Amino acid sequence: MAKEFMGEDFLLDSEPARKIYSAAKEMPIFDWHCHLSPKEIYENENPGDISSLWLGGDHYKWRAMRSCGVSEKYVTGDASGEEKFLAFASCMPYLAGNPMYHWCHLELRRYFGIDDILRPESAAKIRDKANSLIENGGFTPRELITKSNVTHLCTTDDPADSLEYHALLREDDSFACKVLPAFRPDKALAADSPAFAPWLADMEKTAGREIKSFSALCSVLADRVDYFEKAGCRASDHAFAYVPYEECSEAELERIFADARSGSAISPLDADRYKTALLRFLASIYAEKGWGMELHIGPIRNNNTRIFRSVGADAGCDSAGDEQIAVKLSRFMDSLDRENALPRTVLFTLNPKDNYVLGTMLGNFQSDEAESKIQFGSAWWFNDSIDGMTEQMKTLANLGAFGKFIGMVTDSRSFLSYPRHEYFRRIMSNFLGSLVEKGLYPYDEAALGEIARDISYNNAIKYFGIK
Amino acid sequence: MAKEFMGEDFLLDSEPARKIYSAAKEMPIFDWHCHLSPKEIYENENPGDISSLWLGGDHYKWRAMRSCGVSEKYVTGDASGEEKFLAFASCMPYLAGNPMYHWCHLELRRYFGIDDILRPESAAKIRDKANSLIENGGFTPRELITKSNVTHLCTTDDPADSLEYHALLREDDSFACKVLPAFRPDKALAADSPAFAPWLADMEKTAGREIKSFSALCSVLADRVDYFEKAGCRASDHAFAYVPYEECSEAELERIFADARSGSAISPLDADRYKTALLRFLASIYAEKGWGMELHIGPIRNNNTRIFRSVGADAGCDSAGDEQIAVKLSRFMDSLDRENALPRTVLFTLNPKDNYVLGTMLGNFQSDEAESKIQFGSAWWFNDSIDGMTEQMKTLANLGAFGKFIGMVTDSRSFLSYPRHEYFRRIMSNFLGSLVEKGLYPYDEAALGEIARDISYNNAIKYFGIK
Amino acid sequence: MAKEFMGEDFLLDSEPARKIYSAAKEMPIFDWHCHLSPKEIYENENPGDISSLWLGGDHYKWRAMRSCGVSEKYVTGDASGEEKFLAFASCMPYLAGNPMYHWCHLELRRYFGIDDILRPESAAKIRDKANSLIENGGFTPRELITKSNVTHLCTTDDPADSLEYHALLREDDSFACKVLPAFRPDKALAADSPAFAPWLADMEKTAGREIKSFSALCSVLADRVDYFEKAGCRASDHAFAYVPYEECSEAELERIFADARSGSAISPLDADRYKTALLRFLASIYAEKGWGMELHIGPIRNNNTRIFRSVGADAGCDSAGDEQIAVKLSRFMDSLDRENALPRTVLFTLNPKDNYVLGTMLGNFQSDEAESKIQFGSAWWFNDSIDGMTEQMKTLANLGAFGKFIGMVTDSRSFLSYPRHEYFRRIMSNFLGSLVEKGLYPYDEAALGEIARDISYNNAIKYFGIK
Repeated sequence: MAKEFMGEDFLLDSEPARKIYSAAKEMPIFDWHCHLSPKEIYENENPGDISSLWLGGDHYKWRAMRSCGVSEKYVTGDASGEEKFLAFASCMPYLAGNPMYHWCHLELRRYFGIDDILRPESAAKIRDKANSLIENGGFTPRELITKSNVTHLCTTDDPADSLEYHALLREDDSFACKVLPAFRPDKALAADSPAFAPWLADMEKTAGREIKSFSALCSVLADRVDYFEKAGCRASDHAFAYVPYEECSEAELERIFADARSGSAISPLDADRYKTALLRFLASIYAEKGWGMELHIGPIRNNNTRIFRSVGADAGCDSAGDEQIAVKLSRFMDSLDRENALPRTVLFTLNPKDNYVLGTMLGNFQSDEAESKIQFGSAWWFNDSIDGMTEQMKTLANLGAFGKFIGMVTDSRSFLSYPRHEYFRRIMSNFLGSLVEKGLYPYDEAALGEIARDISYNNAIKYFGIK
Repeated sequence: MAKEFMGEDFLLDSEPARKIYSAAKEMPIFDWHCHLSPKEIYENENPGDISSLWLGGDHYKWRAMRSCGVSEKYVTGDASGEEKFLAFASCMPYLAGNPMYHWCHLELRRYFGIDDILRPESAAKIRDKANSLIENGGFTPRELITKSNVTHLCTTDDPADSLEYHALLREDDSFACKVLPAFRPDKALAADSPAFAPWLADMEKTAGREIKSFSALCSVLADRVDYFEKAGCRASDHAFAYVPYEECSEAELERIFADARSGSAISPLDADRYKTALLRFLASIYAEKGWGMELHIGPIRNNNTRIFRSVGADAGCDSAGDEQIAVKLSRFMDSLDRENALPRTVLFTLNPKDNYVLGTMLGNFQSDEAESKIQFGSAWWFNDSIDGMTEQMKTLANLGAFGKFIGMVTDSRSFLSYPRHEYFRRIMSNFLGSLVEKGLYPYDEAALGEIARDISYNNAIKYFGIK
Repeated sequence: MAKEFMGEDFLLDSEPARKIYSAAKEMPIFDWHCHLSPKEIYENENPGDISSLWLGGDHYKWRAMRSCGVSEKYVTGDASGEEKFLAFASCMPYLAGNPMYHWCHLELRRYFGIDDILRPESAAKIRDKANSLIENGGFTPRELITKSNVTHLCTTDDPADSLEYHALLREDDSFACKVLPAFRPDKALAADSPAFAPWLADMEKTAGREIKSFSALCSVLADRVDYFEKAGCRASDHAFAYVPYEECSEAELERIFADARSGSAISPLDADRYKTALLRFLASIYAEKGWGMELHIGPIRNNNTRIFRSVGADAGCDSAGDEQIAVKLSRFMDSLDRENALPRTVLFTLNPKDNYVLGTMLGNFQSDEAESKIQFGSAWWFNDSIDGMTEQMKTLANLGAFGKFIGMVTDSRSFLSYPRHEYFRRIMSNFLGSLVEKGLYPYDEAALGEIARDISYNNAIKYFGIK
């Protein structure tokens, strides 16, 4: 008989899986990589309505709507919130098999207590109910975070950021969740971007000094790492189509930096040289601090110029690239390892074709500095699905030590996205349970419960050195 | 207990799957991409025997026979039909897990009413029975097409083709199926092929004018698009190892064209420039016409020179390439989208490593011009298997709007290949049914039945604007 | 109810699977590619203890330990055997889903009769029991090989090797298993390696003549192929990140060879030219001999310089590359096929992204020289897992003639690794059985039993022409 739709045993297909999940579900959440706004957490305003909560900035939903032929007016345009909500609801039935179908219903159930299935016929009623609940309060960022049992979360912050809201939040005893910054120097690395020179000017302002050379930039960034560390930072984050590795002399670096600073065009080779040197420098500082370095590999961004011009970045027009990544990544990591300067590193891929490249790369650089010092990051973005997460887990289990996995992050801009941890934990419990069910792992409840709790929470706390 | 071999519930592993298939199976077929010969459909001759029907031109079967060590004499050589049939039957038991094992038995069952399993011991009896049925008639192209409930099919036609058989078929009221041409200008794009200059001469003959420049070629091809449209064409089709994207000036294009026309060698870079410009030009016309543009990405062809020389192209010596495709494809599509000239586009891949590249590329360029204007083409050629189709469907469902999928094509040269639509529909129904069975989608029979009927037929009719 | 952990029906999930396995399990073993030492087989010494047997040279276990944060002291360092064994046992619970978890327990069960689960709590007892069994004898190489029912095995040998231990073993009637050499000229091909010139000196010594030219090298290697053949060799073996294909003149080859011989640096392009020419020459001799040529494609080796310097090669710091392989491999094979000089070839990949490249490449070059003359090598190294083997089998079955598959090799340095053939046979039987269970193949016990026996043993014996 067909299972109940998203019932109690959602995603749990065996008795061992259910037992394992009962251990996992009791753990709090450490969301060590997300894109939440510390300002919004600090200001803590109740949202306007379900449309703004759901459709105001969620490029996953925008993509889904465009895929169903919905006009941009109802996606990011000037249609009303009601119109947008109904337009989105009209797409839902066609999203069979899409993780968003589950995310939406999990959010309706866990935050709103709405069990109805979202479809055109039910849309008005669901919207009304959700909006009246929102109006009654309880949907501010802090309330949602607290309700979700989040003990720590890491935002994503530019080195030039003052971290003022992090400071304000630290001083506010009324909010138990620790909101930690994470160091994301993508703009510092993008010497080949038109945004580089303006960013450098911002950075100079924050630093209170001029940055006239590559070595000056390194010195400023090292200071910012100190500053971030004092604000509780334990992680850095980097995004690449591929991790570059090109060596060059210091003189060449200074030439490239001077060109970039003056706004001159930088060749792809020079850009890779610059990125290699700066990332190596930063990595060595992260290693000293005991930080985790997250490398998000694979996206090609802003593919649609028309939408980029009208809506901007992060508008649902990014996709998976297919660069060759193995040799350069190996050379990059080895260059640091040789100098005892390789930090804890988390390798994420957007293209599952690289699962075995990353899954086997880990083992090359493990050491006793941490349990699984090199981590295979949880299935990310387009892979944040039952299939994507299961594949990532199978890959990691086959090639590494699954029990040492640091698990899930939301990577989200939405305060409603914490049920994705539930989604992950159910899938993880089901994966472990299936091993038991098939006679591939002993039915050792203590060991399995420990692994489930560790992957859900403890491993990440330990890995990032959270006190 | 083991399921009956290819019984009523073949490929349907749950009660919801069986229910969904009951909706899918009643739909007619729109085979919007195949390689059937309009001439053969028009002439409508009864085939000689099962050997010529099955082994006369089917490179899938040739590959299977060679893989079992069968000598070329019995594959494409001068052995008798009987010998070839017996040689093929002797391979069958070893093809466990190969889709051809199912295709063959589906064809025997659906067209011949033969339920026996094809193996060396049964081969003579099956051959006799099939041949006596063929002798009794009922196996002409039109009879097979009609029996298969095909309402429309699109052949594959060169721009220089006169489409005379399409015209004759349009005038023939006795045959209900619409036989539409599809525009396949591969030879026009292959400026780097020795076949280019001869093709150009043919094209000049059909066009009735000289083609002395790139711009003249564009003008002629635009006229041919008009001509094809008047003949009912709604689709174009293109094959590439990768979709090129290299910009250049008009002067450079003319130089490249002149070189190609004179039979001079064209560099790979120049070939890509030429292809980019011509494909962009053609795509913009397709967009005006509302046609669908099919891009078949990935094969490397005629790998075996010995067989190519003795048997020719399409002899079973093609395989999957592994080019990097993402960035160029993105740049190509964006260059058109920026000019509002991106047609409806169907992206096919021969290498499943690119499933996530294509599956995520779709979302970059969707719009309200069509429901899922950019489509992920059904699992194709070597992927036309249970595993290949299931993977394509899972990818599409995870990343896009599965309910808007335009579904299956045979891509076949054989009049017996329509059971591949049944194969697809069973797999599609099983995929949808498994979502319900596992509690991942509500058991909403109406919604599921609609999706199944749409994917089987309605979506493609709507997508290609069939009247 | 959960299946018993590694019980009688381990990996056999259906009644047909169990029936098929009963045929497979009775077959002896032909391990046609491994890294066992003929010297150790000849000398036939009892091992010291379980620590040296398990942890003395097994880079799989080293990786697993490092992944759990174990210090190098307990991995390859100077800790005691007892300490190392306990350190390894402490990792075991975290290796859920890792094939090593199964290999270890299979080895404990099949060779030691120990059914306990290896975990920290049981480690001391298991170690004591295993060590006392070892002390009582029965664990020499020949005893383990004989107990495993191995009729033939192929070692991996350099062309400069004298094969003296193979000769001694041939003369020793007391050992029934045939220990055959396999020809592995990796060092001859690595003209770009610092080890080339020293290897050439060794080769000259063995050959008893100077090798002053590329053509002289070819002549010497041809003699060595003769020599190996007389020692019973039926296979060669080659490892590549990708199979090169670059043509050049004989004069260029001689220049490259002269540079390499003198220790000068060779450019990557020149190295590929040299490798192409030499591999083509060797392949044509293998074809004459009827040998099988194994191509192991994909690793990037010695990624970790620190470990390479302290521990050496094969220390657990290799991983999967992601080179483009399709076009060059095609050109290489075609260049031989055109000259009727393509030997039986076994294509292995370390990166499952290339499964469809290899699986479709096979079909291009099959012929009547052998049943599946071009083979898709069994899932290898990091893919030697339930998932990896199942994927390889599904790929092969979808694209080729599964019944003609030559099956499993251990590729191992350990005398305890023969249960991997059991692991493979269970997975293979389960795969075939699942086809029957799902109604995708008839429940023809005779045909299925034949396929299972063929894949387990007979096909390889026939393929390599073992008398």
